[in-house]
Amino acid sequence: MSELRPHIDTYEQGKTLSERVNPGMEDALRARYEALVPGLAETVVDVAYGKFYARGTVDEKTRLLATIAALTALGSQTRPQLQVNIQSALNVGATEGEIAEIIFQMTLYGGFPAMINALNAAIEVFDRQETNT
Amino acid sequence: MSELRPHIDTYEQGKTLSERVNPGMEDALRARYEALVPGLAETVVDVAYGKFYARGTVDEKTRLLATIAALTALGSQTRPQLQVNIQSALNVGATEGEIAEIIFQMTLYGGFPAMINALNAAIEVFDRQETNT
Amino acid sequence: MSELRPHIDTYEQGKTLSERVNPGMEDALRARYEALVPGLAETVVDVAYGKFYARGTVDEKTRLLATIAALTALGSQTRPQLQVNIQSALNVGATEGEIAEIIFQMTLYGGFPAMINALNAAIEVFDRQETNT
Amino acid sequence: MSELRPHIDTYEQGKTLSERVNPGMEDALRARYEALVPGLAETVVDVAYGKFYARGTVDEKTRLLATIAALTALGSQTRPQLQVNIQSALNVGATEGEIAEIIFQMTLYGGFPAMINALNAAIEVFDRQETNT
Amino acid sequence: MSELRPHIDTYEQGKTLSERVNPGMEDALRARYEALVPGLAETVVDVAYGKFYARGTVDEKTRLLATIAALTALGSQTRPQLQVNIQSALNVGATEGEIAEIIFQMTLYGGFPAMINALNAAIEVFDRQETNT
Amino acid sequence: MSELRPHIDTYEQGKTLSERVNPGMEDALRARYEALVPGLAETVVDVAYGKFYARGTVDEKTRLLATIAALTALGSQTRPQLQVNIQSALNVGATEGEIAEIIFQMTLYGGFPAMINALNAAIEVFDRQETNT
Repeated sequence: MSELRPHIDTYEQGKTLSERVNPGMEDALRARYEALVPGLAETVVDVAYGKFYARGTVDEKTRLLATIAALTALGSQTRPQLQVNIQSALNVGATEGEIAEIIFQMTLYGGFPAMINALNAAIEVFDRQETNT
Repeated sequence: MSELRPHIDTYEQGKTLSERVNPGMEDALRARYEALVPGLAETVVDVAYGKFYARGTVDEKTRLLATIAALTALGSQTRPQLQVNIQSALNVGATEGEIAEIIFQMTLYGGFPAMINALNAAIEVFDRQETNT
Repeated sequence: MSELRPHIDTYEQGKTLSERVNPGMEDALRARYEALVPGLAETVVDVAYGKFYARGTVDEKTRLLATIAALTALGSQTRPQLQVNIQSALNVGATEGEIAEIIFQMTLYGGFPAMINALNAAIEVFDRQETNT
Repeated sequence: MSELRPHIDTYEQGKTLSERVNPGMEDALRARYEALVPGLAETVVDVAYGKFYARGTVDEKTRLLATIAALTALGSQTRPQLQVNIQSALNVGATEGEIAEIIFQMTLYGGFPAMINALNAAIEVFDRQETNT
Repeated sequence: MSELRPHIDTYEQGKTLSERVNPGMEDALRARYEALVPGLAETVVDVAYGKFYARGTVDEKTRLLATIAALTALGSQTRPQLQVNIQSALNVGATEGEIAEIIFQMTLYGGFPAMINALNAAIEVFDRQETNT
Repeated sequence: MSELRPHIDTYEQGKTLSERVNPGMEDALRARYEALVPGLAETVVDVAYGKFYARGTVDEKTRLLATIAALTALGSQTRPQLQVNIQSALNVGATEGEIAEIIFQMTLYGGFPAMINALNAAIEVFDRQETNT
């Protein structure tokens, strides 16, 4: 490794964050995908969590609302991942109303159908949440 | 108008907000588009600003970062509007670093090329800003 | 409100149109979404129906075929809304063959998979329609 | 060729249509692309014009407005082709106002930035048109 | 037909290829869609198989991996077609590992959610395959 | 770092690969983006090159053709990155004809306009290449 590179172990940072926000995620990814795509689970933890979400500068809640915005505008074709991020946003303190507002705002960029679809995905998460309490 | 509808004059709210964030925008839109699409300028003010951005619940800075996230993930095909929103985000107090962070995070949802393109669009806005000061 | 603005009550126009094309829609939207996103139902009626579909210049059938074209090319990720618009197109006099033709044409812009998906969505609507008769 | 297949020479039909709507197009495509992609020019004529636009059932103007709708909602990333179709729509009798209306309507499905971008592309075509007259 | 045009019967070539890779496909398409969109089945065979996949220059396996890449990056909104192409790739000799690798690589262009969705679609195909053996 | 994790230094692998395929890339990214997004250059090398392209299983040429396919189907909104990948594909031995074929094939998934746009981007790269020789 180049001596001049200020190497940061993003895997460790990502692991800490992912275990806090999504406990058990890496193990679940490994169980499902490791035989087919060796390294996938580690890459998700190292890259998504370690190299992006753990960077600071912007707080977790804003980051998650931004992600929800993007996945909504992209047309909710990735519904399961949208729902994972909605759950994470609730976990870090976003309210249902804030999440719904950000989704609603995406009407302006992704159109009405994308917004309604994402809102329906969110309502499923909110309902599950309330059932659990 | 139905008496039972709790009618809110979203145009007036949108006008106040748009004049604060983007002074002169409605007039500019009217001058350019009114002959071709009567009502376009009013619709932008009433809908985009009045019916969405002025709603409260989520603060302006978070809303604009969410919009920047969405336009980045959509592939920056709407570069001029991305730049308008980046400028608006600066105007309401977002730092260049925060805007860049949110764009960088979109690598995870829109991929590296979309992220780099959006970052280049942002740098243009930041440079213009610094030249003006 | 600015005296010079030729204010049009687009909500009333949208309400009339939406009740004709999709009777009961605003109430359904209000029942499902109002607690979470206050104003959503009114916004759909005022904006989608009042500020766009009710504008004239282009007839309803052409407008709906254009919408079906767009939702097809966008990849049918918004299948329920595509089906609502297909049903509306039938309601204003488009034939099944015309709707299918427009979807088929979208092969050129959204590709074969998007076209086949949208056609399958249309066939479901056509089948329901025939069952009802 | 299978005797049972009701073979239609879509190339000839496409050629007739493309020469009427876009005279010289196949030759231009051949000059630019034939060495690199043998058959591309013939494929455009045979497929796009012969197998889709020449099919009947829906009139040319409606077909072109549907195409303009789709390209607008897709984010105008294909600006040159959007402009070709806008010019073709004018050629078959669509008015500037109708084209602008369909683009404006796409706000509902592709968002405001996509709509504004497409409208700007259209205005360029309209201006060129007026200069030529 | 123009005498100068080096006419190639792409339908026959497409038919041979499609019967080898997807036996019975044209008949299935005809049974399902012919009444609604006359010519659709022939167009798929002639265009998709005859005018594109049968062209040579690039081998079938590379072509199918490229298609899988594109459908993954587009967000798997066309899941059934993605699965058809994954099955075809297996049929022409691609391994499960290679298909999974190409899907995984698309993280860089379509993001993590699109990649995970496509991988899940692939696993379904792989599981079906193994059950059949 | 967890002792059980089979840690691979993907940065070093990515650096070796990126210097071979795109010499000077990390330095250029660092010069342009480091002040704004600390770590971006290292992330591109570590993630894009180290964690994806350097993985083996699929050869570099096939990987690059898959990337070109994806960026074409996404609508070439990321033209500069499409061109970088086209140049890389030439560097690892893909012919102009193969690259053009894969782009042409994307007509089936991204439509004709996306294909033509990508082909034009490729021709620019091919012309530059020939000028340099």
